[in-house]
Amino acid sequence: MKFKRNERIGGIVKILSDSPNKIFTLSYFTQKFNAAKSTISEDILIVKNVFEKLNLGKVITIAGAAGGVKYIPKVSREDAKELLNELCEQINDPERILPGKFLYLIDLIYSPQIVSKVGKLFASYIDYSEADCVVTIETKGIPLALATANAMNLPLVIIRKNTKISEGSSLSINYVSASKEKIQTMSLPRKSLKEGSKVILIDDFMRGGGTLKGMEDLMKEFKADVVGKGVLISTDTPQEKLVEGCISLLRLIRIENDSVETIPNEDVIM
Amino acid sequence: MKFKRNERIGGIVKILSDSPNKIFTLSYFTQKFNAAKSTISEDILIVKNVFEKLNLGKVITIAGAAGGVKYIPKVSREDAKELLNELCEQINDPERILPGKFLYLIDLIYSPQIVSKVGKLFASYIDYSEADCVVTIETKGIPLALATANAMNLPLVIIRKNTKISEGSSLSINYVSASKEKIQTMSLPRKSLKEGSKVILIDDFMRGGGTLKGMEDLMKEFKADVVGKGVLISTDTPQEKLVEGCISLLRLIRIENDSVETIPNEDVIM
Repeated sequence: MKFKRNERIGGIVKILSDSPNKIFTLSYFTQKFNAAKSTISEDILIVKNVFEKLNLGKVITIAGAAGGVKYIPKVSREDAKELLNELCEQINDPERILPGKFLYLIDLIYSPQIVSKVGKLFASYIDYSEADCVVTIETKGIPLALATANAMNLPLVIIRKNTKISEGSSLSINYVSASKEKIQTMSLPRKSLKEGSKVILIDDFMRGGGTLKGMEDLMKEFKADVVGKGVLISTDTPQEKLVEGCISLLRLIRIENDSVETIPNEDVIM
Repeated sequence: MKFKRNERIGGIVKILSDSPNKIFTLSYFTQKFNAAKSTISEDILIVKNVFEKLNLGKVITIAGAAGGVKYIPKVSREDAKELLNELCEQINDPERILPGKFLYLIDLIYSPQIVSKVGKLFASYIDYSEADCVVTIETKGIPLALATANAMNLPLVIIRKNTKISEGSSLSINYVSASKEKIQTMSLPRKSLKEGSKVILIDDFMRGGGTLKGMEDLMKEFKADVVGKGVLISTDTPQEKLVEGCISLLRLIRIENDSVETIPNEDVIM
């Protein structure tokens, strides 16, 4: 089958965009579109240009034997600002306040459309160039972490909160979640993480950082190295967290019985 | 800013492909690309052609006031066959057999690349034209269900397995999971599902169907209508399941202590 330039461009965009951070060789495209290398190289230049002009992320060419083309999702500051402001507007609805000053957020953090954007945002602010996988803890962080792993083209690992899991031998640790003020257990099957891995931790919400601290401790048991961590929302109080260097996209400034205020993190949108 | 046809085609493909099943108006594109309606209409014809020629799904035009263009992910029989055969090859590795004849599958069912393909596959075989949301139960089905919800452009709802959830008032039911042979509880916050919704149930694994039956029962409590259900793998035994009409992509024919056999479901790939 023969393809016109327009059609090749459309096809290349679709293929790259469906698999962020995956390297496609020139030969892959020459075979797919039955075209010469020089033709495909020209096509790719045009594709690069489209992504740049439309602020859709970056398309880069990697030289050498293992070389090829890949698409790196990158959210511009303006788009980040718009997304986070929209999220805050939705979160700051007093109807979301639950007994015990919890926030009802699952409609947002389970939304495929929202998490796919937030995943690209994490991939824009967390350096994952050395990372081997994304790690999260069940349940509410899973959609965000999956979207992040997808944007980073990394496997996802999910820590379980109980030990009744049938996934072979597991490593467990105890941790204290500040919000619940009690000792809990988190476990991870041995098979699911190689010793010495470099990992990115992702979760939905951080108050004191007890859960993330637990995740860090569990990673130590796997001799894994935490090379980045991100949460969607962190609370301003307590100011001192149990973990350092966590990127938070939103700040929960205050929550009362009848009002709540969340703002985008200045470091992310400035 | 002015765009060449090539660039517009690339941009339109990226935008449609990033948001499956979302309707974009012609005006959205005329503004984005600073071009006339007739020009954009021509572009869209080319985009339709690309998707068809490359078997990437369908792009359709909807007439009328609420009209526009949308991309419908659709996996061809050949691609489905290839994907499911590859999955079986990976699953049928005796190393995956765990004590108690469980199968270690989390590296596959948590893989962003795999679930995104499986999600499109569910969207190709389950009729979701009337559906309001995708419903799953924690934990292992979540990535599959999120990818499915994404392909269908529907919100995701996650049923929890414990009642210690801080999401406001919840509805709970008891169910018997055949594989564990004990009574368990599943809960869903009232806020998270509108009464009378039409839902698609997605899970990773079905043995007797106890969990899916529980999900159906919980849906009844919400006066919700189950309009479709799908699992990645169902076991051949027991032959009689507690639920009917569930689409299973793979069949687990047998699992012994040292060998396992899974095959693609003929109904899906034939």
